[in-house]
Amino acid sequence: MSVLIVGSTALDSIKTPHGQYARLLGGSASYAAVAASFFGPVQLVGVVGTDFPRRYLALYRRHGIDLAGLQIQPGKTFHWSGEYEVNMDNRRTLATELGVFEGFQPELPPAYRDAQFVLLANIAPRLQAHVLDQVRRPQFVLADTMDLWLNTALDQLRALLRRVDALVLNEIEAQQLAGHTNLYEAAARIHRLGPRYVIVKKGQHGSVLSGPDGWFLAPAYPLRKVVDPTGAGDTFAGGLMGYLAHNSGPVERKLRRGIIAGTVLASFCCEGPGLSRTTQLRRAEISQRMRELERMTRF
Amino acid sequence: MSVLIVGSTALDSIKTPHGQYARLLGGSASYAAVAASFFGPVQLVGVVGTDFPRRYLALYRRHGIDLAGLQIQPGKTFHWSGEYEVNMDNRRTLATELGVFEGFQPELPPAYRDAQFVLLANIAPRLQAHVLDQVRRPQFVLADTMDLWLNTALDQLRALLRRVDALVLNEIEAQQLAGHTNLYEAAARIHRLGPRYVIVKKGQHGSVLSGPDGWFLAPAYPLRKVVDPTGAGDTFAGGLMGYLAHNSGPVERKLRRGIIAGTVLASFCCEGPGLSRTTQLRRAEISQRMRELERMTRF
Repeated sequence: MSVLIVGSTALDSIKTPHGQYARLLGGSASYAAVAASFFGPVQLVGVVGTDFPRRYLALYRRHGIDLAGLQIQPGKTFHWSGEYEVNMDNRRTLATELGVFEGFQPELPPAYRDAQFVLLANIAPRLQAHVLDQVRRPQFVLADTMDLWLNTALDQLRALLRRVDALVLNEIEAQQLAGHTNLYEAAARIHRLGPRYVIVKKGQHGSVLSGPDGWFLAPAYPLRKVVDPTGAGDTFAGGLMGYLAHNSGPVERKLRRGIIAGTVLASFCCEGPGLSRTTQLRRAEISQRMRELERMTRF
Repeated sequence: MSVLIVGSTALDSIKTPHGQYARLLGGSASYAAVAASFFGPVQLVGVVGTDFPRRYLALYRRHGIDLAGLQIQPGKTFHWSGEYEVNMDNRRTLATELGVFEGFQPELPPAYRDAQFVLLANIAPRLQAHVLDQVRRPQFVLADTMDLWLNTALDQLRALLRRVDALVLNEIEAQQLAGHTNLYEAAARIHRLGPRYVIVKKGQHGSVLSGPDGWFLAPAYPLRKVVDPTGAGDTFAGGLMGYLAHNSGPVERKLRRGIIAGTVLASFCCEGPGLSRTTQLRRAEISQRMRELERMTRF
């Protein structure tokens, strides 16, 4: 069963203390789709310009990503550039050129409309909602978001939250959305906005799942060196949804293991610029780190 | 088997957004001793003034804490006062009156010198070393420390580190001691200074154990409200050592479970001002939260 993923498809120029990289394959949907692809087929919905490198289309295809939903429009691909500080915790955006993304209207090919697992990766909530309108009876919908939408499209985001099974967001966003600084109190309040499951990402401190069965406290995978954290959150969400769609069992157990799968994929993501490390991954390396995390958390 | 604990014994006046509390029982040794007492007897080494309230001596005794090593000297008890900011993450010291603590020279009663489990709670490294000099053949020595000693007594701290089995410190202190911002890299470097085990506390984000068997990634217990975090780190170390001294099995497994015991005790500590919640605890409540943490981390 495919995972349907909508989000941004972009070119990223990234500056870190370790190096500088121009026009890497980026965007929330790209990171999420590659991550999800390790567990099974992916249907991508996005838009790129005619300048989009053919090698990136080949990369998607190599990962079994269905491109029927990827629009190629006259104009330039969304281009983001940003810079990380020495400790890698803070980044600042140097430039955002929307290009063809500005007029993006995601349309689902007929074959996508029966999708059971839908990842609304980080884009404007009205676009996420527009995709959801076109899916018949999804089994599980996970939405990602970012501070930009909390600040500029809060009503649309709140409307969307009533329609999703799960929301993933980072700690600061959770605090802002809930209006409370305590993470656990914030998660409880976000449930009241709609999502049955709330997943709060804490970067190097792991993540927390809140759901009907209580808390799941997930660690991050210990990394002694972070090369480029761009896309780690998108990779986390993609890995999680890929795992969820392609494994059986009770949903809460799958969510827990899916979060660990996403955590591991995000750790690999951070080990190279852009998608360079992730795209080199073998499935066995993911299982290996999942087992390691099991050993590192047992007591 | 008793746990020998040396550290500060103080009176704390604390201001938080939730309330203001004067002359609570405080100090690293007090918190650690009460926490350790839930697992078995404790031998306390410290100093108080003649103004030290009798009810606090009664409190120690009620917890099975041996006071043969507690000096009562003419003068005032060490008094600390501090204030927490709204988010409870930052605190600032308003006043530190050392009183009799200024001339503290910890002397061990003969019965203490065969101690097997020694917790050098947070005090000056030269005092920690002086206690260690008097213990015959300890089985396991855990040292705690703080930024003050990194800044003012680094050589003495480094000399001490060559003599302890384990060091516990917070993330910022670990980064400072190791000269590296990456937590895992920092822990690896601290091993080279002596300790076989390094435990890094991350507050609400849990803790990390580094040892011969690799990493143990421990969560914090989820708290929706923090009343007063004073002493949480000391409580953590005390609970850990209490667990270690009074349970059998391989040391690494005991350390992992001890860290979880310390984590749980620290969570209770944060739920009331000073030691008020901790002293009301029943042993069954500790086991209950340990089981909860097990459920919250399994995948």
